[in-house]
Amino acid sequence: MTNQAQDRKLWGGRFAEATADLVEQYNASVPFDQRLAEQDIRGSLAHVAMLGQVGILAADEVAQISEGLQAILTDIRAGHFEWRLDREDVHMNVEAALRDRIGPVAGKLHTARSRNDQVAVDFRLFVKEATLQLADLTRQLRSVMVQEAQRHLTSDQGQPVILPGYTHLQVAQPILLSHWFLAYAEMLKRDEGRFRDAAARMDESPLGSAALAGTPWPIDRHATAAALGFARPTANSLDGVGSRDFALEFLSACSILMAHLSRLSEETVLYSTFEFGFLTLPDSHTTGSSIMPQKKNPDVSELARGKSGRVFGNLMGLLTVVKGTPLAYNKDLQEDKEGVFDSFDTCSITLRLYAEMLPKSTWNADVTRAAAARGYSTATDLADHLARSGVPFREAHEVVGGLVGLASRSGRQLWELTDNEMRQAHPLLSAEVAGQLTVEASVAGRGSFGGTAPERVQAAVQAALSELDG
Amino acid sequence: MTNQAQDRKLWGGRFAEATADLVEQYNASVPFDQRLAEQDIRGSLAHVAMLGQVGILAADEVAQISEGLQAILTDIRAGHFEWRLDREDVHMNVEAALRDRIGPVAGKLHTARSRNDQVAVDFRLFVKEATLQLADLTRQLRSVMVQEAQRHLTSDQGQPVILPGYTHLQVAQPILLSHWFLAYAEMLKRDEGRFRDAAARMDESPLGSAALAGTPWPIDRHATAAALGFARPTANSLDGVGSRDFALEFLSACSILMAHLSRLSEETVLYSTFEFGFLTLPDSHTTGSSIMPQKKNPDVSELARGKSGRVFGNLMGLLTVVKGTPLAYNKDLQEDKEGVFDSFDTCSITLRLYAEMLPKSTWNADVTRAAAARGYSTATDLADHLARSGVPFREAHEVVGGLVGLASRSGRQLWELTDNEMRQAHPLLSAEVAGQLTVEASVAGRGSFGGTAPERVQAAVQAALSELDG
Amino acid sequence: MTNQAQDRKLWGGRFAEATADLVEQYNASVPFDQRLAEQDIRGSLAHVAMLGQVGILAADEVAQISEGLQAILTDIRAGHFEWRLDREDVHMNVEAALRDRIGPVAGKLHTARSRNDQVAVDFRLFVKEATLQLADLTRQLRSVMVQEAQRHLTSDQGQPVILPGYTHLQVAQPILLSHWFLAYAEMLKRDEGRFRDAAARMDESPLGSAALAGTPWPIDRHATAAALGFARPTANSLDGVGSRDFALEFLSACSILMAHLSRLSEETVLYSTFEFGFLTLPDSHTTGSSIMPQKKNPDVSELARGKSGRVFGNLMGLLTVVKGTPLAYNKDLQEDKEGVFDSFDTCSITLRLYAEMLPKSTWNADVTRAAAARGYSTATDLADHLARSGVPFREAHEVVGGLVGLASRSGRQLWELTDNEMRQAHPLLSAEVAGQLTVEASVAGRGSFGGTAPERVQAAVQAALSELDG
Amino acid sequence: MTNQAQDRKLWGGRFAEATADLVEQYNASVPFDQRLAEQDIRGSLAHVAMLGQVGILAADEVAQISEGLQAILTDIRAGHFEWRLDREDVHMNVEAALRDRIGPVAGKLHTARSRNDQVAVDFRLFVKEATLQLADLTRQLRSVMVQEAQRHLTSDQGQPVILPGYTHLQVAQPILLSHWFLAYAEMLKRDEGRFRDAAARMDESPLGSAALAGTPWPIDRHATAAALGFARPTANSLDGVGSRDFALEFLSACSILMAHLSRLSEETVLYSTFEFGFLTLPDSHTTGSSIMPQKKNPDVSELARGKSGRVFGNLMGLLTVVKGTPLAYNKDLQEDKEGVFDSFDTCSITLRLYAEMLPKSTWNADVTRAAAARGYSTATDLADHLARSGVPFREAHEVVGGLVGLASRSGRQLWELTDNEMRQAHPLLSAEVAGQLTVEASVAGRGSFGGTAPERVQAAVQAALSELDG
Repeated sequence: MTNQAQDRKLWGGRFAEATADLVEQYNASVPFDQRLAEQDIRGSLAHVAMLGQVGILAADEVAQISEGLQAILTDIRAGHFEWRLDREDVHMNVEAALRDRIGPVAGKLHTARSRNDQVAVDFRLFVKEATLQLADLTRQLRSVMVQEAQRHLTSDQGQPVILPGYTHLQVAQPILLSHWFLAYAEMLKRDEGRFRDAAARMDESPLGSAALAGTPWPIDRHATAAALGFARPTANSLDGVGSRDFALEFLSACSILMAHLSRLSEETVLYSTFEFGFLTLPDSHTTGSSIMPQKKNPDVSELARGKSGRVFGNLMGLLTVVKGTPLAYNKDLQEDKEGVFDSFDTCSITLRLYAEMLPKSTWNADVTRAAAARGYSTATDLADHLARSGVPFREAHEVVGGLVGLASRSGRQLWELTDNEMRQAHPLLSAEVAGQLTVEASVAGRGSFGGTAPERVQAAVQAALSELDG
Repeated sequence: MTNQAQDRKLWGGRFAEATADLVEQYNASVPFDQRLAEQDIRGSLAHVAMLGQVGILAADEVAQISEGLQAILTDIRAGHFEWRLDREDVHMNVEAALRDRIGPVAGKLHTARSRNDQVAVDFRLFVKEATLQLADLTRQLRSVMVQEAQRHLTSDQGQPVILPGYTHLQVAQPILLSHWFLAYAEMLKRDEGRFRDAAARMDESPLGSAALAGTPWPIDRHATAAALGFARPTANSLDGVGSRDFALEFLSACSILMAHLSRLSEETVLYSTFEFGFLTLPDSHTTGSSIMPQKKNPDVSELARGKSGRVFGNLMGLLTVVKGTPLAYNKDLQEDKEGVFDSFDTCSITLRLYAEMLPKSTWNADVTRAAAARGYSTATDLADHLARSGVPFREAHEVVGGLVGLASRSGRQLWELTDNEMRQAHPLLSAEVAGQLTVEASVAGRGSFGGTAPERVQAAVQAALSELDG
Repeated sequence: MTNQAQDRKLWGGRFAEATADLVEQYNASVPFDQRLAEQDIRGSLAHVAMLGQVGILAADEVAQISEGLQAILTDIRAGHFEWRLDREDVHMNVEAALRDRIGPVAGKLHTARSRNDQVAVDFRLFVKEATLQLADLTRQLRSVMVQEAQRHLTSDQGQPVILPGYTHLQVAQPILLSHWFLAYAEMLKRDEGRFRDAAARMDESPLGSAALAGTPWPIDRHATAAALGFARPTANSLDGVGSRDFALEFLSACSILMAHLSRLSEETVLYSTFEFGFLTLPDSHTTGSSIMPQKKNPDVSELARGKSGRVFGNLMGLLTVVKGTPLAYNKDLQEDKEGVFDSFDTCSITLRLYAEMLPKSTWNADVTRAAAARGYSTATDLADHLARSGVPFREAHEVVGGLVGLASRSGRQLWELTDNEMRQAHPLLSAEVAGQLTVEASVAGRGSFGGTAPERVQAAVQAALSELDG
Repeated sequence: MTNQAQDRKLWGGRFAEATADLVEQYNASVPFDQRLAEQDIRGSLAHVAMLGQVGILAADEVAQISEGLQAILTDIRAGHFEWRLDREDVHMNVEAALRDRIGPVAGKLHTARSRNDQVAVDFRLFVKEATLQLADLTRQLRSVMVQEAQRHLTSDQGQPVILPGYTHLQVAQPILLSHWFLAYAEMLKRDEGRFRDAAARMDESPLGSAALAGTPWPIDRHATAAALGFARPTANSLDGVGSRDFALEFLSACSILMAHLSRLSEETVLYSTFEFGFLTLPDSHTTGSSIMPQKKNPDVSELARGKSGRVFGNLMGLLTVVKGTPLAYNKDLQEDKEGVFDSFDTCSITLRLYAEMLPKSTWNADVTRAAAARGYSTATDLADHLARSGVPFREAHEVVGGLVGLASRSGRQLWELTDNEMRQAHPLLSAEVAGQLTVEASVAGRGSFGGTAPERVQAAVQAALSELDG
């Protein structure tokens, strides 16, 4: 009997006809699930050790199987393992290789286990580790954001870099560049939180759920859970083999993270245009064009922005897979992996690239400061000035609106309005008041908690640094 | 000056031309955001009280404004409030009504506040409350699941109801109906956890972030946060007005919940077909057909299954909205509300309907038991029997596979095979062994942690009840 | 017997228990499907006329029912119709109102028809008309684009307006503004094509499919199809009541259209920033801010960009609904309507707004021309010059790249390089060559088919105008 | 100078610093876009031939380049080509290999072309061919559906196989199995139409659009379009390089197809359960279980159902990518390919598998006929009988509803009701009438166009066969 024929026997005992080639190709998950090889072997090692502990297998059987698995793992790590499509998936590949290596005793590894709980535990291990790794990478990028915030508190000749704050992409009010960095730090903090919450929720071992109903063998699920670093075993075997909400939660957290990074990317692209001119990205993180040699393209940011699509798509894909499937395991669930692998890879490289690129980027403080002064960005300060003197807010608003219209029509800034024009608009106004409407004064004034005043931002940086250190 | 013209002046001071009708219709959010009226007025009351505390407004101004707002709230609750499309959104409607009622002092309410932080706090209040409410409703349905699990431990003449456990929708192994209920209880437990984690993460007040940069007024954001029941104010004003990940996280948790409910719905639909015949849904929760009077349609489950689509769509929609938008506030974000309202309504009514319907449904224990016996569902037990006698698992598997093929070809159950047939298959087998392969024995044997053995399920029910009470 | 009780009897003959309130609310589609009232009555009128023609109903019955339906339609149009939630859907509401008005003969309207084919034909009529309407609106906006292209061929003091052409949002090469308009005209042309193809494909009447299997009554489906303006009846009754791909195709075409409009919106937002300064949107189509009176916000474009999300979400939603549902009709399909209505409304108002707004917008030709000259946008022309003299393209590219680097480091334009610098870079170069690198020359040179040379663009405008007229 | 350093120079002339490793990995598309190698070389061959025809290149240059490209293509087909990640994409790999092979003249290939139009034409070629291929495969599966419809008109001992028709997954009315097959044939016919419409709409060559603005070289775009089999060149260069709606339309058509196949899959899974028992899938297209040897799992159908998710996800992904990107080309668009490749592969293998599997599947006619008789599925026929005698439809409905209730409560079929019971329900009824309510009579009666009566279905099969042959 050939090896392949033997392999097919693993579930083919009853079958009269061979599997069609196209079916084999359709079913085969080994092209992607070989990525779970480490997890699969760790799961098997924990399982076989437990089988020995509870007396289901003899010590020498455990030793034989464990050594065989270790040897296979060594081969896989070294790239010497021959993955075979006709062996369908990672589990069959490893198991068949074990049989080739140690003979029929290999068959005992599968005692009190099913491919259903085996794949569930492998995938759970992967997703949990991926989740924690993204939490760490998110934290590292956050740390970069806070450091950049700190750096730019004094990087403009000892002064904070001033950036226009936008609403509707119209210059609204001047802010500190450091304040802008801290906004992203806040988003990333919540992203990290989502990953950590998800990791804690999925920290349960499904191993020992068997096919779907548990097993009559006297296994110790707490032992395998502990050996694999899980907080506890899953409490219900149907749920253990049939649920994939841990992967959905992972993909949701990835999608929200990518939504945040797509915003950062959009701003990076905008700010490095000729028109904005705020930001010079490092040569190491930009590329050129084959026909236009002068171009310096923000590819990293563009790709990051675009790659939000694949992560959202992966989430939508798995939601669709799960929708309307009955309990417990259905083959549809084999579709759970590629989107997760892809989202993990996408998020981790994107996080790492931003952590590399931002500290090497240069902010053009003169340009950003000048831009922040445009667009009558301190008009609100003028309205606030009137309101503080008791003018109802809505009236103050109208007065200032009129002055802006006047200035705009004559191509001037607010501080270029004449004393007469100011006084005509409102008796409480004057050229002197107008003269105080600088971007520095505006920024310095916004000292409310969470506001952009330098001392507030400084305090926020310190708080963030302490928390990151802690 | 007409009221309408005056309204437009709120931001129209500078504008020479009136807003086009179609634009007014496009921009107007009042048809949907009036749902935030309670939150808007609560936010304003907290804001004005704080303005009084810190001395920005005089006590009588605070009183006038507060009483005006309370009166408007009373009108709204009574359905007497006239919502006007030309007043664009809930904030303008309330503010204009306040001015109509108490005169120009109304204008002072907007001191140290912008529509950006106003809408942010209103929406945050809504989403937080919606999140907590769905956490509670999820818990209630979970409680129903656990009670049903308990009930069906003895509902078949004192015995547990036995259900076929499926993989690939093929009968796999017998399980307890109670075990099936507990699987959904586990999913709902994690769903509740997701809602609670989300609520904790979003428990921050953006009020006082002003337009985007904070405000020069000496406001007390901790006071307004506390007054509104938030754990703390947001730490960064740009992030406070510009981030919507709290809504994305809410929609993600809703989507995963609906994915679970779509699975429950699929099973409910299947189990109440003529072909399965496991489940009789209550008349109160089914409908008939206009041309086929005999039909009893599982509409609730079908709609629940279908409505997963709208919730997934709402999530996809908001991810798209956020994708690639620069900081801080963009009008695109106005698109954040309808999908959240719709998802909240969809999830809450679906949860309530299942909590009503399941206890009124009848499981046909004879039918489920007979179904559980079909399909050679105890074949695994036979393989386990061989394996326990030292036969390598894979060999045992082949032996049993052969017997199943034999039985299947001759239209018999495993226990109907002859002693001769059994012994020929393997010397360790006999007619006596075959005779023990009942569904009751199969279920009773699966006593591993998380397994379907009655005493395991009983213990799981007790644990769940304690946790729900605690 | 009350009317309500009687209503329930429509399908409740067999039911012992009343429908639970929450179920009634969950099932009721009348809040949204009343929008199909016109289609429903048109469908009924066609059906009853045919029933008369083939002799199933007597002439006076047909007359009574038709007059009753017409009267109800008049009431609905006048807003006098009382929609009742307890009558569940638009069909039940109309049918019950007909019975109230003309008595038991109303019951004959439902002969040889089921709610399944009734709702299918109503919805099909709506979607077909919506599809054709969006095709027309798309064509109208395309017409606006072409007219704007024509206008801007001479709007800069008789000369074409020049715009920077971007790749990676970096200035790449100068183009004509008219060329940019025509790019969107091309996209809209394909969008129109998608709507028209979809309309042709869905142009089949499902009426007469009955519940799912056809009917024993001798009906004439070709007659009702023709009366309702359909090209033909559907060929298979199961497919007629159970398929919704026409709605999915509609939503796909809407999504692609909105993707295009989101790009237009992004550019409109960008080009009307202070930093770009290319475009001044009309006051009538922009709004202000409550705290920053100087702001002129491109709300229409921002909302259009954001509203792509709701349309994508509607598509995702209906794909999810359809996924995995067995034939023929399932209640899940009731979820098909709201997303379609919403997408139709969103697309049509967005198309109309752009058709209004673009002709009222002002392009600042000096600014765009200056921007087009930045960024060494004619460097490719220099490389092409070298290549035309036989220098291999890649070598030319490197030479020009070096010159750009030189110019960039010294803050000059290419045409400001000295004769010496040019000759040192390559013997075929000189200050004279550099001096010819104007944006006008660059644009004029790109005369390949589909290129931006004025005569090419002029020809493209003429071709488009002919096609639109034809 | 090393080859690698030289490669980088393609756009790196101006750059002082090398690209970071991670960036190279992030940007590199060669792992997936090497799939476009054939298209890339065909595009280059057409381009270089045209450059010769119009006199831009000399005949021997054309010959050298063409032979070089052909040799590379041979290498690629033979698997001898070394793809290099540091050469970023398929274009750079081929171009550098060409230079390695024929020297600097290789640089002339890129005359009058940019990577923007190059990738646009490569991808357009691929998508067009993929679209036509899926149209063909869809047609082939449709042909199988029609053949199966024909076969099952007589496969039950010369009689048509009768199947229960379902609504709400409740047995509604008997239908022919052939009718069911034809329903899917109708869906697939529209799917094919969508692919063909899409292919016709995208049948335009972007080659010659250059970077975005056309080119000053005197190229002949009509010639290259014709050489590549396109109907015409694109009419606008910005649109030519920057639009991806052709890929979106392809993904939409794929998604709708997969929605249909997911319905077919759901039914295949259901009908091959023990509980339904309608369908026996071939061994060649099912698999077993590692722990439950008796299982015969409908993996193909489950995977097909699940794989709808990945295709929907790919569509959502690309919609997200395109959303909000400015013209013309942005690096985001590099994300357009993987989802298209994946969707093409998924759809084509799924279509092929169903075309293989359905003819090898066995329908159990006795079981389906018995199931079709259940559930009072002919009750509508009874109501129609009454209505034909002049009883208003709604009254007939109530009478039949009462009889169904009576039969149901006493566990009988309608034809088992006594003469007395029938007459009591309505004077026009009798035991004789009841006795005629067989499934054969029911089916035979539904002779309306599109209905399930055998002669109707026979005619529909003939019409479909003619159309498929034509």
